[in-house]
Amino acid sequence: MLQMSDEEYMLLALDEADKAVQLKEVPIGAIVVYRDQVIGRGYNLRETEQDPLLHAEMIAIREAAMHLKSWRLEECTLYVTLEPCPMCAGAILQSRIQRLVYGAKDPKAGCVDSLYHLLNDERFNHQTVIVDGVLQEESREKLRSFFQSLRANKKQRKQSNSIVT
Amino acid sequence: MLQMSDEEYMLLALDEADKAVQLKEVPIGAIVVYRDQVIGRGYNLRETEQDPLLHAEMIAIREAAMHLKSWRLEECTLYVTLEPCPMCAGAILQSRIQRLVYGAKDPKAGCVDSLYHLLNDERFNHQTVIVDGVLQEESREKLRSFFQSLRANKKQRKQSNSIVT
Repeated sequence: MLQMSDEEYMLLALDEADKAVQLKEVPIGAIVVYRDQVIGRGYNLRETEQDPLLHAEMIAIREAAMHLKSWRLEECTLYVTLEPCPMCAGAILQSRIQRLVYGAKDPKAGCVDSLYHLLNDERFNHQTVIVDGVLQEESREKLRSFFQSLRANKKQRKQSNSIVT
Repeated sequence: MLQMSDEEYMLLALDEADKAVQLKEVPIGAIVVYRDQVIGRGYNLRETEQDPLLHAEMIAIREAAMHLKSWRLEECTLYVTLEPCPMCAGAILQSRIQRLVYGAKDPKAGCVDSLYHLLNDERFNHQTVIVDGVLQEESREKLRSFFQSLRANKKQRKQSNSIVT
């Protein structure tokens, strides 16, 4: 099998993010790759399931662990469209993921490069190789247009409410 | 209904930890309390389920969210026998838990007081009230005796192996 590039895998993570949009979830997508095979996929399902743990990364990590029948994802790479939050960065540590490739930085909650460097802290029993900025513009644009249409919808609803009253 | 004290709730979390021991899991237990009612319980199931996400806190948080049919656990208190790791501290932030009560400190991976102070970082959109050290000796003793018997078992197995070979 031909080995895919980080950009090609990130396109698959972006495909996952698109599925979130359809459910009006914040468009973040993730995949887990093991020996050139996708063994986990996930997109944000927090609102749909009303479950605070269902970030894209968490779903992909769980699926990968079920596939390998092991909580140790030592030979795996996680691709995610946005820099992971503290919970997801922690899950990467817990699952011993070898390599993280992410798209856009998250200056508000990112715990890999922005606010903290949780994956390079030698006091923990695991460190992760990090590749940042892969298809970051595509990822950022997806988030931007999602929040833009959310604001437009809110404005429209406000206007139609004021017509009614 | 009589309001229970933090110590009394922590005893329930310690009961959860005991269930983990029976499965040879590291004995950590957690409960979530909402308006004086236990709405989530959990104990470590990582090895049993081979799922890196199944820490006690995560299971209790998910159950509480299912109970409230909401990812926002804003009026809830989480009781856990050991200081949360980065993943679980992150899950506390994600679920907007109002108050965390924990037992023993975890100098190796604790992200509430030991290595980081993730729950008091004003750059995040949520902060949590923290009460530490509740029944810490009981919690520590449970962990100590678990690891002691693990080491004793290993030694015994080594000895019986060397008799066989």
